[in-house]
Amino acid sequence: MKLISYLDDHRVNRIAYVEGDKVFSLDFTGDMVTLIQDGSESLNIYVEQALKRPALSLQQVDLAAPLLAPAKIVAIGKNYAEHAIETKSAVPEEPIVFAKFATSIIGPGADITWNASLTNQVDFEAELAVIIGQRARNVAEENTLDYVFGYTCANDVSARDLQYRGKQWVRGKSLDTFCPLGPWIVTADEIPDPQNLGIRCQVNGRTMQNSHTSKMIFSVPFLISFLSHHFTLLPGDIILTGTPDGVGAFREPPEFLRDGDSVMVEIEAIGQIVNQCRVTAA
Amino acid sequence: MKLISYLDDHRVNRIAYVEGDKVFSLDFTGDMVTLIQDGSESLNIYVEQALKRPALSLQQVDLAAPLLAPAKIVAIGKNYAEHAIETKSAVPEEPIVFAKFATSIIGPGADITWNASLTNQVDFEAELAVIIGQRARNVAEENTLDYVFGYTCANDVSARDLQYRGKQWVRGKSLDTFCPLGPWIVTADEIPDPQNLGIRCQVNGRTMQNSHTSKMIFSVPFLISFLSHHFTLLPGDIILTGTPDGVGAFREPPEFLRDGDSVMVEIEAIGQIVNQCRVTAA
Repeated sequence: MKLISYLDDHRVNRIAYVEGDKVFSLDFTGDMVTLIQDGSESLNIYVEQALKRPALSLQQVDLAAPLLAPAKIVAIGKNYAEHAIETKSAVPEEPIVFAKFATSIIGPGADITWNASLTNQVDFEAELAVIIGQRARNVAEENTLDYVFGYTCANDVSARDLQYRGKQWVRGKSLDTFCPLGPWIVTADEIPDPQNLGIRCQVNGRTMQNSHTSKMIFSVPFLISFLSHHFTLLPGDIILTGTPDGVGAFREPPEFLRDGDSVMVEIEAIGQIVNQCRVTAA
Repeated sequence: MKLISYLDDHRVNRIAYVEGDKVFSLDFTGDMVTLIQDGSESLNIYVEQALKRPALSLQQVDLAAPLLAPAKIVAIGKNYAEHAIETKSAVPEEPIVFAKFATSIIGPGADITWNASLTNQVDFEAELAVIIGQRARNVAEENTLDYVFGYTCANDVSARDLQYRGKQWVRGKSLDTFCPLGPWIVTADEIPDPQNLGIRCQVNGRTMQNSHTSKMIFSVPFLISFLSHHFTLLPGDIILTGTPDGVGAFREPPEFLRDGDSVMVEIEAIGQIVNQCRVTAA
């Protein structure tokens, strides 16, 4: 199933089930993390009840990020060989783990924004986002997909100057608005194999990244197992699985995002998220 | 005032006000982050009411981490010159920002634990933890202390092998149990100058770190302003302000933590937190 968050008239986040063009609001006032924590039985009851009520249309609703307050965003660096190569780094022998702060999350249509005095090397990174469904600690690689609640598209927006200046990436990756997420969560049952999805990124309609999740060095099941041997993954936690080649910083010459640019991340079987860039004056 | 979290009979986290040896439980069922969000007026009312009820004694209660689920832990690297020098790095020109995942938080008396197959270079780092009291975005350095709710002691436990192998520090810094926090939050009004506190770390009673927060390169007010120009700081967010010199990894020869070791972090005007190390077999 597809689940969205949207802003209703009172600017409150509501969760809804989407079927085609129809939106069925759940009679649930908590956030998506709480809904995931409550488990699939509870979710199914909410959806069943929602289907009995009148639907809105998808065009009517103001989409928000499907998930706003995960306990953590775990991000993986250089997880596609061609991307590692374009950065002139070695292909990693084990996952490179970094973090993004959750305050960076925005939804479809929201502006990616930064101040010109802080950075002028802002780049896009199309990524498959995995949403954890249940507590995972020391889990074996087999059956780790049972721990996945669903998937969505993410843009791991990165201020390259800040990212490399301090060597620790979290700062340049965590500016407010630097984690577009959406347009919805597609639950895991609809994506039996997360390593079989086309993934691309367009800037102003021009294709910049065009790859396939089969090219990940470390698969989603491997990553869940690996990470869970270090720390507990909680319901609602997000894993960003790395970006393929084609980012702006390593082109000749580099091409960074500019004021007014429109960035689209699209993943097969999920959908696409589009955000505009807005640069505020120094 | 001093605020603790403790586990009551039903193993539920309760918040209490501490005066000397007396513990006054608040009639509040939410967590510390929610209490902070609700603001100081609300807090004062809860405390006033609690003081009318019978007290427990501090020896009776099972202390937990004062704060378990901050939206983020922002950590600062090499923020004491002598520590930067002992790591043979340059003294940083701007703050080095990294993250710890909140799943690493434990309270006083809880075990710091790791598996011998994952790491055998676990180190201690005494740090002053700043707890944010209100939303801070783009705040000027003046008056930033108004955004502080309080302070506590932290141990930024670090698996050096994992920390340096992947270059991104969050992995080696975020193993479950690697962020002892406590014993309580001392509210900001009791610590007018966070740059005027002795800070030390003892392992099995032997002093390993012995310094003073006046030696921070970037002060608490500077850090809050600097960070808030990158991302929004939320009520309950934790800033770990860096560790002084004396950590185990850079001694000759290096001295890492071992099974059974007792680690104590102590900060003047706050108190001390003690944790034991427990290594599980490979």
